[in-house]
Amino acid sequence: MKQKSVRVYAPASISNLGPGFDVLGLAIDRPGDYATARRTDEPGLHFSIRTEHDGIPSSAKENVAGHVASLMLEEFKPPFGVDLLLEKKMPLGSGLGSSGASSVAAAAALNVLLPKSLKKTDLLRFVVEGERKASGSPHADNVAPSLLGGACLIRSYDPLDVIQLPIRNTIVWIIVHPHVVVRTQEARDVLPTSIPLTAAIRQWGNVSGVTAGLLAGDIRLLGKCIEDVIVEPVRARFIPGFDEVKRAALDAGAYGCSISGSGPSMFAIAHTRIAGTMIGRAMVTAFRRHGNIHCDTYISHVNMHGAKIVWTKER
Amino acid sequence: MKQKSVRVYAPASISNLGPGFDVLGLAIDRPGDYATARRTDEPGLHFSIRTEHDGIPSSAKENVAGHVASLMLEEFKPPFGVDLLLEKKMPLGSGLGSSGASSVAAAAALNVLLPKSLKKTDLLRFVVEGERKASGSPHADNVAPSLLGGACLIRSYDPLDVIQLPIRNTIVWIIVHPHVVVRTQEARDVLPTSIPLTAAIRQWGNVSGVTAGLLAGDIRLLGKCIEDVIVEPVRARFIPGFDEVKRAALDAGAYGCSISGSGPSMFAIAHTRIAGTMIGRAMVTAFRRHGNIHCDTYISHVNMHGAKIVWTKER
Repeated sequence: MKQKSVRVYAPASISNLGPGFDVLGLAIDRPGDYATARRTDEPGLHFSIRTEHDGIPSSAKENVAGHVASLMLEEFKPPFGVDLLLEKKMPLGSGLGSSGASSVAAAAALNVLLPKSLKKTDLLRFVVEGERKASGSPHADNVAPSLLGGACLIRSYDPLDVIQLPIRNTIVWIIVHPHVVVRTQEARDVLPTSIPLTAAIRQWGNVSGVTAGLLAGDIRLLGKCIEDVIVEPVRARFIPGFDEVKRAALDAGAYGCSISGSGPSMFAIAHTRIAGTMIGRAMVTAFRRHGNIHCDTYISHVNMHGAKIVWTKER
Repeated sequence: MKQKSVRVYAPASISNLGPGFDVLGLAIDRPGDYATARRTDEPGLHFSIRTEHDGIPSSAKENVAGHVASLMLEEFKPPFGVDLLLEKKMPLGSGLGSSGASSVAAAAALNVLLPKSLKKTDLLRFVVEGERKASGSPHADNVAPSLLGGACLIRSYDPLDVIQLPIRNTIVWIIVHPHVVVRTQEARDVLPTSIPLTAAIRQWGNVSGVTAGLLAGDIRLLGKCIEDVIVEPVRARFIPGFDEVKRAALDAGAYGCSISGSGPSMFAIAHTRIAGTMIGRAMVTAFRRHGNIHCDTYISHVNMHGAKIVWTKER
């Protein structure tokens, strides 16, 4: 058997994009997770993890990356074992699709080793199982953009129907991750089970505008439609200083600002990286003023590649 | 004072487009209403109507066109009177924005006579008052496309925010109007006041897909997203033969099919006019088989002009 190893990078993602709860997500350049997979003579999965963060499950059974890799090995039964190392760079509970990036990195790395590699879209059904493991339901609004790149619409979960939106990638996304933890499950538990039709109508008007803004590269339209009348109001309370940070972003020139995924990360949009840098600083300052909360800031266009091979080695 | 008269055509419109209840609408070429306005020396509004249809209010006070014209005259107080003739070609209760076309034709005609004509978008606030008169609420999803042309997103009603979507006008729209009457108010009364969050999420996923399909001219995407899990199920019962007609449209090659506005008209989409003709015939046949219901059929691309001056005369 030919030796082969591969290292893959899977990027973080912003899901919801304001009003598009559970249906819209897009990939950003950083942060992200790495996975290195290597064929071994010993059969089965040998999973290990390298991370600076606390609370990340490290067994193949409990870790989402190990879980996804196990499922793939069970199904495809390759004539070799796999050594899988997850370099877990992203903290959990950031609202940036941390578990999704781990699942995607693992699946995309393992895929390269398989005798017959799958298309990226065919990996989706495995990586959503990582999300099921992490949060109890097979969400695709983080894993789809992390895997495929670009902005994705999850039109349906039953059956899973993911559409890569043909966006004009002209808008700069600013992400500020305050160092407080929001558990996805906790953030889901506060959601209403039913909503007024009038609120739903306003929400889908905004979803239409966000979609049109992304496709046309129209930052004004996108910005004003980043308005979430259903989810943001109940989730904002998990983010200390939410109102001040949003105000600071808009005052600094952001066209729109909301929560990334289930938070606590917040995102804003700008025309240029220079404007983005100013907006990011204003948001970080607002978090610091509110409660001395430290933050990481990331600024990029939409990452159109998704999961990417960093290197492969054969010998 | 210079004599001046003008004749304007305002087209019908398809609102909702499946999942986009109350927020999406687009103009089609036919049917439509005409209004002819003429300056007179006698002050005030002299309203008359010419129609083959029953049940259309004919006084300036009760007719939407007369109402809209009165509001404009009250506000702008031009130094002349106006003779306004509405040629009411469309029947009421068709689901094709019949009252909207009358309001738009009247407003656009009168606008030409004003000493300082308004931009089309500035006429919106008058024509929505026609809709308020007709149905009790100032809906814009028919009047906006009839006035402005193209496909419109009504992002917000408070304040009114109408966005003309930059669509690729490649798709053919088939409209079949069965000769049964559905009153807009009755069709609104059956709507739920609150809906499950899960249904709302599916709906806004479809709204996003419809929007992306329109902008990209992607008929497959548009077609599969013309799915309405909230409004169509409760309104379909007002349309005798709804299920058979929808089935007939899809079997004949339509990419999607749903109710236009509050019905009973139904629309479908196709790649070409030839395919559209086949689909229209299949739908008409299904209506006839179901209950010997007679229909009118209209086939066109999106009407990108909206309200249009047919002629002006000065002497």
